[in-house]
Amino acid sequence: MRILGIDPGSNATGFGVVDRLSGSITHVTHGVLRPSRSAPLSVRLAYIHAGIARVVAQNAPDIAVVERVFIASNPRSALVLGQARGVVLAALSVSGLEVAELAAREVKKAVAGTGAASKTQVQAMVMRLLELDTSPASDAADALAVAICQAQAGRLTGLGVSRRRRPRRVAGRVLPRSPQ
Amino acid sequence: MRILGIDPGSNATGFGVVDRLSGSITHVTHGVLRPSRSAPLSVRLAYIHAGIARVVAQNAPDIAVVERVFIASNPRSALVLGQARGVVLAALSVSGLEVAELAAREVKKAVAGTGAASKTQVQAMVMRLLELDTSPASDAADALAVAICQAQAGRLTGLGVSRRRRPRRVAGRVLPRSPQ
Repeated sequence: MRILGIDPGSNATGFGVVDRLSGSITHVTHGVLRPSRSAPLSVRLAYIHAGIARVVAQNAPDIAVVERVFIASNPRSALVLGQARGVVLAALSVSGLEVAELAAREVKKAVAGTGAASKTQVQAMVMRLLELDTSPASDAADALAVAICQAQAGRLTGLGVSRRRRPRRVAGRVLPRSPQ
Repeated sequence: MRILGIDPGSNATGFGVVDRLSGSITHVTHGVLRPSRSAPLSVRLAYIHAGIARVVAQNAPDIAVVERVFIASNPRSALVLGQARGVVLAALSVSGLEVAELAAREVKKAVAGTGAASKTQVQAMVMRLLELDTSPASDAADALAVAICQAQAGRLTGLGVSRRRRPRRVAGRVLPRSPQ
């Protein structure tokens, strides 16, 4: 089972791909889509659309998981984030992928042990879990964390993936590469 | 010059196409994209993406104009609207179109004489301006109004279309099909 995690953003959309095989989770790839800040909004969003389509075509994931948003207090920020998030969700679905969503807080809790984990803590835990030599950029680390969280939920339930499954039982414990 | 106007929304995305020829504005087509309310969010957004791509392919507009949003006071509404709006903007740009934006208030003022015009007033004015036999649905009327506003701006300036041009000089007066 190959899982694509995505952390949408208008300036930086992180993506991360992991494989879940025989109970272990392994790193495949990760990166960040950064549209030109000087380009018109529609061109920036088209860049994100095309980038997501390329990542799907190159990696052939079985499912995509997108970070669910905690609504910001600022409507303008919510609109800007919504625009990038909508493009990501549509691009995944147009590519024929099933799309699940996980709350950022659940992801942090599953990967770093607390829903209030800092970006640096998430980066460090993702690096350790996937045995990476260098730390991924923050947005890519968040995307990998989403994919890891989904992989753990699927592994523990034994039911494949489910958008309703909350990985509460693994909160605080992470078992990289332990065969079941 | 063929102009595609769009009024993005998560439940209903209106579109309207007009031609500006020799100073007159004529109706080409209009409609509303309504994703299934029971479908997952990603599927609903993919439906909007595909619908916009189809409208562009069938009508071959020279430019697309999207209603610019007045930020709502509610961040959740802003996120939901942003998602649909992002999909529309990306789909237009992916189709190779130049995309302009016009504020809803400017559009209402140009078409109905006041930025505070009601939906019914906009519908009635669009119907009259384009000499339609029946009133378009509200979302389609808004989209046609966006296209009409852009067409008037382009006609009056004689400089083609510009996203910065504000059609203030035509506020309150509308000149359908008057050859210049």
